[in-house]
Amino acid sequence: MNPFIAEYIGTAILILLGSGVVANAILPGTKGNGGGLIAITTGWALAVFCGVVVAGPYSGAHLNPAVTLGLALTGKFGWALAPGYIFAQVAGAMTGSFVTWSMYRDHFDLADSSGLKRAPFCTDPAIRNFSTSVISEVVGTFVLVFVILYITGANLEGETKVPIGLGSVGAIPVAFLVWVIGLSLGGTTGYAINPARDFGPRLVHQLLPIKGKGSSDWGYSWVPILGPIVGASIAAGVYLMLG
Amino acid sequence: MNPFIAEYIGTAILILLGSGVVANAILPGTKGNGGGLIAITTGWALAVFCGVVVAGPYSGAHLNPAVTLGLALTGKFGWALAPGYIFAQVAGAMTGSFVTWSMYRDHFDLADSSGLKRAPFCTDPAIRNFSTSVISEVVGTFVLVFVILYITGANLEGETKVPIGLGSVGAIPVAFLVWVIGLSLGGTTGYAINPARDFGPRLVHQLLPIKGKGSSDWGYSWVPILGPIVGASIAAGVYLMLG
Amino acid sequence: MNPFIAEYIGTAILILLGSGVVANAILPGTKGNGGGLIAITTGWALAVFCGVVVAGPYSGAHLNPAVTLGLALTGKFGWALAPGYIFAQVAGAMTGSFVTWSMYRDHFDLADSSGLKRAPFCTDPAIRNFSTSVISEVVGTFVLVFVILYITGANLEGETKVPIGLGSVGAIPVAFLVWVIGLSLGGTTGYAINPARDFGPRLVHQLLPIKGKGSSDWGYSWVPILGPIVGASIAAGVYLMLG
Amino acid sequence: MNPFIAEYIGTAILILLGSGVVANAILPGTKGNGGGLIAITTGWALAVFCGVVVAGPYSGAHLNPAVTLGLALTGKFGWALAPGYIFAQVAGAMTGSFVTWSMYRDHFDLADSSGLKRAPFCTDPAIRNFSTSVISEVVGTFVLVFVILYITGANLEGETKVPIGLGSVGAIPVAFLVWVIGLSLGGTTGYAINPARDFGPRLVHQLLPIKGKGSSDWGYSWVPILGPIVGASIAAGVYLMLG
Repeated sequence: MNPFIAEYIGTAILILLGSGVVANAILPGTKGNGGGLIAITTGWALAVFCGVVVAGPYSGAHLNPAVTLGLALTGKFGWALAPGYIFAQVAGAMTGSFVTWSMYRDHFDLADSSGLKRAPFCTDPAIRNFSTSVISEVVGTFVLVFVILYITGANLEGETKVPIGLGSVGAIPVAFLVWVIGLSLGGTTGYAINPARDFGPRLVHQLLPIKGKGSSDWGYSWVPILGPIVGASIAAGVYLMLG
Repeated sequence: MNPFIAEYIGTAILILLGSGVVANAILPGTKGNGGGLIAITTGWALAVFCGVVVAGPYSGAHLNPAVTLGLALTGKFGWALAPGYIFAQVAGAMTGSFVTWSMYRDHFDLADSSGLKRAPFCTDPAIRNFSTSVISEVVGTFVLVFVILYITGANLEGETKVPIGLGSVGAIPVAFLVWVIGLSLGGTTGYAINPARDFGPRLVHQLLPIKGKGSSDWGYSWVPILGPIVGASIAAGVYLMLG
Repeated sequence: MNPFIAEYIGTAILILLGSGVVANAILPGTKGNGGGLIAITTGWALAVFCGVVVAGPYSGAHLNPAVTLGLALTGKFGWALAPGYIFAQVAGAMTGSFVTWSMYRDHFDLADSSGLKRAPFCTDPAIRNFSTSVISEVVGTFVLVFVILYITGANLEGETKVPIGLGSVGAIPVAFLVWVIGLSLGGTTGYAINPARDFGPRLVHQLLPIKGKGSSDWGYSWVPILGPIVGASIAAGVYLMLG
Repeated sequence: MNPFIAEYIGTAILILLGSGVVANAILPGTKGNGGGLIAITTGWALAVFCGVVVAGPYSGAHLNPAVTLGLALTGKFGWALAPGYIFAQVAGAMTGSFVTWSMYRDHFDLADSSGLKRAPFCTDPAIRNFSTSVISEVVGTFVLVFVILYITGANLEGETKVPIGLGSVGAIPVAFLVWVIGLSLGGTTGYAINPARDFGPRLVHQLLPIKGKGSSDWGYSWVPILGPIVGASIAAGVYLMLG
């Protein structure tokens, strides 16, 4: 499989399953309504697991521009491929969230607030305070990229040690990492920690004819882009500094 | 162990444990009543784990006609064995759900709605809309079969790489996959994603003398058969297309 | 470490952690009060994990007379050691539940029903019906022993393949197995599936001066002994029959 | 990476994620409010996982003075490095809890009780009874250190077998161990089981200008120091006695 296609498919699976668990846990009338923190964070963690299992051997399974940036800054990934990776990630995220909406359409119709209809697509802050929101996304992404840099070890382009070393069992550490970021650092902004994960589905929300959907909240959309870029850059810097 | 017996036993364990967690979480008076989304999805995931541990080395642990179909379409499994596998899977599913009922009989008696009495046997949609239900089962099964095709690698008949490669630890990726499908894609139809899992126990529900059991809802029963067949076929097609 | 001491210590850890999670989840005033099905079953599963990690390389970590019986019946364990193993398991279970009580003493004092005070020690049925209770314990123990027989492969006395093959990671399959038995088959009788786990702590409950503790319910105590013996025997028989 | 820096960074990650999950689960207005026992214990377990993944290959990832003590008493770690390790652990714990506070500042402001504002920093007993609190911390830390001594096998200074043997997958057993300690033994005192984890963040709570923060409860602070020291010492003694 071509690495760009792998990033596209891996990110589509990630976002389908990630936005799916949000839809299941919060939209009215679903079988998982009220599933709560543990269900949502477990779902996102295992969504990453599945994306890594599929894309890992072909693209290294970044599935996230912040990861691509962190690996490129530390010399583990070539810059030349980065734009293609990021484009594929955004396209994959759009595809995934579109499929989630197709499946849960009847439940989107039942939802009576625009916030509820938007939540399976993109993140929003629990308390609207741009400075603490940015800090939250910086911290969350720092942990994501920093720990991934220690999980992966290889310097090969488009490859990480994890999915190759232990097959699909090797995707587990990354899933555990995302699980705990959700549990521990997701309380303020809903842990985007991935610009493609937030921007792509937000665009889909903008484009889809969901009745009563309200605003796509573009005023907040720069936070889950800037925060992850800064967090990944700091993670790469600290990693390089520590040698 | 003969591969057909392995499929029979593995599927019986899968369905015993899967319908068991539904019974525990929803039937009145059980110790796990109200266990909710995380309990039910964890139970089904680990039910798959146990089925794969037992059947894996002998039959490849399909435990699901949709998986058999997906492996056959991609040339990973011989068509000649498929009918026997599917028959064994349905028989196993029937056996498993019968044992669950035997254990939880007192709690079935306590249940005061026919829907509650049927739920541990077979799936039903949260909102009765055939088109979105079919889409849901197609998407869920697509993810199941597509990711399994990347977890397994071998082309040997009746074998997958997972259970052989890493012993019982190798059953974990498949369990994680089913876990997240439940969490993320189970909110609409209860993720049958397996024709045997739904049809076999529905037949048992029809046959058993459960008082006040009501209809076995055969009008819906084609959805969790058609959806998985279509989903598995698309997964196989995409997999082959990607080379 | 001597294998009897290993069984003693492993079972003590198992029961300390197992009865501990029940105490935490149900006794009044604890930090985990109301933890529910997922917390209790996760706790018991990981309790097994810890017991197996410690005892595995020295005794094979049966930690359960039903497992000892199943392994002996299938020729994987020598009968001569069985009485010593079982004695050590009961003594370990007594020790573990005593330590739990010491820790949670203040919360036992707060509990206002004798049922609540007894629950961290030993099991009781959700609905008092001896025949379905026995069936439940037979089924639960059948699954436990049957799947363990496929997880383990070696025929060496006092050893299983699991803890040796993969170190502490190898204890994970058994933990997962116990997790799902709790989730799926624990709803009726609270899944003793282990005569030592129930009898030892019940004896401690009888002996300890817990105020307002009420009866130790010896009238039920034969169920979690007989059921597991029958279940383990059937599992061994089926396993041998399947060759 | 220098082993002291590794302990510093590993403990900072541990406490950031650990205090983070408490903040998310209990502070008002967070997305995870009411997450409960399973969320909090899963978060702490995976916090340990991440700390071990990062620090493991460089320092052995003690991240806890009680672990350092237990390994030193059993000859698995040299005493000379112990003071530096412990200093680094306390400094890391302070850093981690400071970052958590920075992220969750708006939610700390919303909290209307001093107990709620202190809980993400340090532990307190469910029932104020020094003797049972000390017993609880002794038992919890005994289990932690005793099982770790059986997970690790090497005698090399500053190294354990776990993170080296299986890469990041090897951090999983320790995470599982901490998970069950939280579920089973955390109900009375909130399982500090780590003097640095409690003392460092308590000091940060004392120093930070959190409005309405109330007392830092230094009267209790000796319990989560003394208990873990005693528990670790007993664990080391029993381990050595068993040979």
